[in-house]
Amino acid sequence: MSTARELVTASAGTPAYDIVRAAYVELQVNDLAAAEHFYVELLGMVVAERSSGALYLRGWEERLHHSLVLRRGPIPAAARLGFRVRREEDLDLLASDLGQRGLRPAWTRAADPGVGRVLHVSDPFGYPLEFFHDMAHAETQLQRFDLHRGAPLLRLDHFNLHTPDLVSAFQFWAGLGFRCSEYISTDGQDERLTGAWLLRKPNVHDVALTAGRGPRLHHTGFWVGEPAGVLRACDQLAAAGHPHAIERGPGRHGVSNAFFVYLRDPEGHRIELYSCDYYTGDPDHEPLRWSVNDVRCRSFWGTRAPDSWYEESSRVLGSDGAPVPIHDADVDERSQRTEVMA
Amino acid sequence: MSTARELVTASAGTPAYDIVRAAYVELQVNDLAAAEHFYVELLGMVVAERSSGALYLRGWEERLHHSLVLRRGPIPAAARLGFRVRREEDLDLLASDLGQRGLRPAWTRAADPGVGRVLHVSDPFGYPLEFFHDMAHAETQLQRFDLHRGAPLLRLDHFNLHTPDLVSAFQFWAGLGFRCSEYISTDGQDERLTGAWLLRKPNVHDVALTAGRGPRLHHTGFWVGEPAGVLRACDQLAAAGHPHAIERGPGRHGVSNAFFVYLRDPEGHRIELYSCDYYTGDPDHEPLRWSVNDVRCRSFWGTRAPDSWYEESSRVLGSDGAPVPIHDADVDERSQRTEVMA
Amino acid sequence: MSTARELVTASAGTPAYDIVRAAYVELQVNDLAAAEHFYVELLGMVVAERSSGALYLRGWEERLHHSLVLRRGPIPAAARLGFRVRREEDLDLLASDLGQRGLRPAWTRAADPGVGRVLHVSDPFGYPLEFFHDMAHAETQLQRFDLHRGAPLLRLDHFNLHTPDLVSAFQFWAGLGFRCSEYISTDGQDERLTGAWLLRKPNVHDVALTAGRGPRLHHTGFWVGEPAGVLRACDQLAAAGHPHAIERGPGRHGVSNAFFVYLRDPEGHRIELYSCDYYTGDPDHEPLRWSVNDVRCRSFWGTRAPDSWYEESSRVLGSDGAPVPIHDADVDERSQRTEVMA
Amino acid sequence: MSTARELVTASAGTPAYDIVRAAYVELQVNDLAAAEHFYVELLGMVVAERSSGALYLRGWEERLHHSLVLRRGPIPAAARLGFRVRREEDLDLLASDLGQRGLRPAWTRAADPGVGRVLHVSDPFGYPLEFFHDMAHAETQLQRFDLHRGAPLLRLDHFNLHTPDLVSAFQFWAGLGFRCSEYISTDGQDERLTGAWLLRKPNVHDVALTAGRGPRLHHTGFWVGEPAGVLRACDQLAAAGHPHAIERGPGRHGVSNAFFVYLRDPEGHRIELYSCDYYTGDPDHEPLRWSVNDVRCRSFWGTRAPDSWYEESSRVLGSDGAPVPIHDADVDERSQRTEVMA
Repeated sequence: MSTARELVTASAGTPAYDIVRAAYVELQVNDLAAAEHFYVELLGMVVAERSSGALYLRGWEERLHHSLVLRRGPIPAAARLGFRVRREEDLDLLASDLGQRGLRPAWTRAADPGVGRVLHVSDPFGYPLEFFHDMAHAETQLQRFDLHRGAPLLRLDHFNLHTPDLVSAFQFWAGLGFRCSEYISTDGQDERLTGAWLLRKPNVHDVALTAGRGPRLHHTGFWVGEPAGVLRACDQLAAAGHPHAIERGPGRHGVSNAFFVYLRDPEGHRIELYSCDYYTGDPDHEPLRWSVNDVRCRSFWGTRAPDSWYEESSRVLGSDGAPVPIHDADVDERSQRTEVMA
Repeated sequence: MSTARELVTASAGTPAYDIVRAAYVELQVNDLAAAEHFYVELLGMVVAERSSGALYLRGWEERLHHSLVLRRGPIPAAARLGFRVRREEDLDLLASDLGQRGLRPAWTRAADPGVGRVLHVSDPFGYPLEFFHDMAHAETQLQRFDLHRGAPLLRLDHFNLHTPDLVSAFQFWAGLGFRCSEYISTDGQDERLTGAWLLRKPNVHDVALTAGRGPRLHHTGFWVGEPAGVLRACDQLAAAGHPHAIERGPGRHGVSNAFFVYLRDPEGHRIELYSCDYYTGDPDHEPLRWSVNDVRCRSFWGTRAPDSWYEESSRVLGSDGAPVPIHDADVDERSQRTEVMA
Repeated sequence: MSTARELVTASAGTPAYDIVRAAYVELQVNDLAAAEHFYVELLGMVVAERSSGALYLRGWEERLHHSLVLRRGPIPAAARLGFRVRREEDLDLLASDLGQRGLRPAWTRAADPGVGRVLHVSDPFGYPLEFFHDMAHAETQLQRFDLHRGAPLLRLDHFNLHTPDLVSAFQFWAGLGFRCSEYISTDGQDERLTGAWLLRKPNVHDVALTAGRGPRLHHTGFWVGEPAGVLRACDQLAAAGHPHAIERGPGRHGVSNAFFVYLRDPEGHRIELYSCDYYTGDPDHEPLRWSVNDVRCRSFWGTRAPDSWYEESSRVLGSDGAPVPIHDADVDERSQRTEVMA
Repeated sequence: MSTARELVTASAGTPAYDIVRAAYVELQVNDLAAAEHFYVELLGMVVAERSSGALYLRGWEERLHHSLVLRRGPIPAAARLGFRVRREEDLDLLASDLGQRGLRPAWTRAADPGVGRVLHVSDPFGYPLEFFHDMAHAETQLQRFDLHRGAPLLRLDHFNLHTPDLVSAFQFWAGLGFRCSEYISTDGQDERLTGAWLLRKPNVHDVALTAGRGPRLHHTGFWVGEPAGVLRACDQLAAAGHPHAIERGPGRHGVSNAFFVYLRDPEGHRIELYSCDYYTGDPDHEPLRWSVNDVRCRSFWGTRAPDSWYEESSRVLGSDGAPVPIHDADVDERSQRTEVMA
């Protein structure tokens, strides 16, 4: 079995298809009105389209139709994680490759407004992944500062997956061509990964893997332009009577250098407002390692993340629409630490 | 005749009354709806009260009823500059003192909602000053971040007067108990004042005097919390289609250290968004001198102020409601400079 | 016995002397070199003067000789809390008044460089207070941005006292002419104060009282210009290998609206970097009440303060140089809360 | 002849080689010590290596050996504009392609420390371009906040070329695979390009083309993390006695949305501190058009750029080391405008 270092420095796969970036997420919610209030009224996302049971939203910068789908359903859950591919034919290449890996990709009917062919697959760990190329364009509102609120949320940046099978998951994503920018591992002989950040677009990540009970969606990250926006979002949430939505931060990550805050929506889905990471597009960009014992790895300022941040996540839905069974991870980052954090 | 240095370092008067601070301004406008759009829709000030011909506004932090009165009138002009005194009886002491100076103070009928006795006087240069103690309280909205827009404007901070009689004006205000925090003067034997900053509340100023054609109101300064707010206000104004409202800045003042921007309202009244000055409350606080030849005095980054900033100002109204005649200053700060600025 | 509301809304005393503001603190430390590294190298304070056993520092804006004295001594403790008075003769008036209150004020030999007469007194609770008027002037370095580090610390703003006798302490300070800007109290019939903010200079406070084991100095607050500076200080501390110095925050206070962070120096003395509070100089400024049950009162974003913040403080020294005995408070803010905070 | 719109929306070329990004610039200076003072002492760039006649610098984030070379020479000039390619063999493909375009690419001896093969070519307009793949790695100092100064400059972002042949230059760069993100053009029937922004890495640009006398290098852009850093850099430059280095801004660009400032080094080379642009990596990302008559295109807040910004630029050196002859452009953005800007 390879060490963490061997794993993260192995070359990523070079498949024939080209996955561009993380692009959309569908969150299932019980109370669609409450979710709309949170994402539209409080966080100020742009409404792209409404249907009877769903709401399509996007960030202020985005030029595709939507990046967040809120859909009414029986339990809070993450229903779909969408990735954009470069060319329409990449979808066929992906379908073939995923089939050869023993998975069962399927073309979904175009249920989403403005979206072309969608390839859906349950990955080996149960995550509901989707791939698409074609989506209707929208006008960017990046410079409609007069309409912005809070942060504002500019664009979807990444998914963070709570996974008990971190090494296998890493290898799966590397096979799809994802490179590693940073990772956290234990010290000593038996070095073990507890977190990894994987990318297609050239910033720190499109997908992060966090060791923990899963498969679950830990959070969806949205890019904001600067730290001042993150602070303003917190001020506005608290002023509007929703301080409880702020779970962790604002703070600076050691990993990624991001200035961040984690929010919980009314049904517990976790959102990260994320800014200030860096360029990773050079072909020989090397992964940075953080020791679990460096108090600065998760929070550069040494602040302890609350237990809820380590323990709670959104269940993911299988192809049958039922939540995928979860199991524990064999490593807990918190128990690896020799030092107590503030 | 005293030199500038002797003037600014002379002790301020210690009158029996206590003027607390600059408190309100009335701006006369032709188009009240356009003014409301600018101050309320674009800049986000809080509406305190409406009457048929006037609009009463305040900043987000303020706890008195209003700090800005917009009143419909034949020409754009500054109608009244209001100062608060500590005790009701200070008004009587002031009335007596002003009378002894040969001025004609008068009690105005309480035309403003929520305001008690008001002492009105045309000062020796023609400025329409008012003094009051009693005004209705309002709830601060400092922490209603969810409702804030742009900067936001927190509170009225100061008046800047365009005056041809800078030395005499300085002596008049010193007589009312105003101390000097900073001044600009020419170099060489015949040192001449071209600007002075005078205070009662312990920050850089309540009243600034700028050498120039007058009597006119150069601008009214409103405090904002931080530079990021000043930038956001500019972004919002431009996004809303009003980039022309931005006359000068954003930038850093040498004098006062303020991070600022100057805006022009639809009828040309000038507003400063002002942040980051400093504490001046110690009894032996000494004035800072800037040479007119230090390119950093008006703009710390050496940026040239546009000519409009030196030349244009709001006419002031006399007791008869007609604009007070104006005359040129005998010194022009720009012509004193030996160095050309960017 | 008066209720909290009666207490905070009673008029402050109007003594004949005029205390201007909180002005300096002396912190006793075991390891003076370590303290110098923290305050000078890491936080970037300006060195005013060194002596064999003491170091005199000031903030970047300050125009008096020093605001922080670090002195080598057997245990970490707060040795003196200094306040400036307006006129030299105020010291005599104070000496007389304090004597009439049964205290034993004494003139200290001018042990501090650049300082004139100093009146020292142990207040009724054991706090070592000092009053002075005369101190040597220094040139402000407010605009020496090229030399600034981190925040930077601009000026001493306030002291926060951990006191078991909150009502009595409130009355003592009110007697010296301190007004109340904000307070926290319990809900229900038996309303009890758990915190109070008291001022002479017109921002939120010069002295805050926090219910808890005491007499101890909870922290000394230093003003910084804007939230971005607070974040930068944290980034620099962590980058320099001192994330443990960051105890709480950065965050927004509900009380005072301040954007803050709490640091602990190498011997545990607590420092607050404090920005963004507001003007309180109007004579009829009314105290704001916060319920202990409003999760936003201590941290506007609902973040729980760590227990260390409630429990740990610096012992204060008596006139004999020995630590003053401490006792518990009869109210603990944390136990009053009905709601659990994040 | 194609219209501006046809030009910018035509698909970029899809050459066999892959240019990753703009990577380094060599600026020739008369006074190397003065240049070092500016870039290292004032702007805080990291020194990678010194040689007798040259200084190699990089930004705080960068992981390659250098991005800025300062070399002593007879006149201030831009000597080389370097681009990184994805694979070593891309250099051979490029050499072949450039030869087929009638240019004379040549392998330079590895004159730069840490750099492998370099392909040098004078492009059809006289710009001295270089391409490389191999450069020694360096440790990022992104999170050494304790050592940062001013902005700080994180990484080289782009070149802006002053060119009289804007359409031809656009077509040349499009042929190398550069896509267009934004452009400025005249109104009316005869639409003419006056500026274009072209990219390989997925933000707004690696190369911008500005209509004007050329070939000259208008400026080199360096990425900074947030607007607060741009302001801090200005404050530090002015405080250190170099306000004249600030030529234009700080401000917000309409094009690119960047928050920026333009600096001039001691010999007049122009540097942009650049932040806040956006993601352009989607394959169907469409160019945004700005009319020259929109006062917000160059400065979103409507601020007029100084004439020096339109007129002055760095001469570029030919293969013989002599400055390439320059000629005027046939369009001047300023004269196209119908509206006067502040």
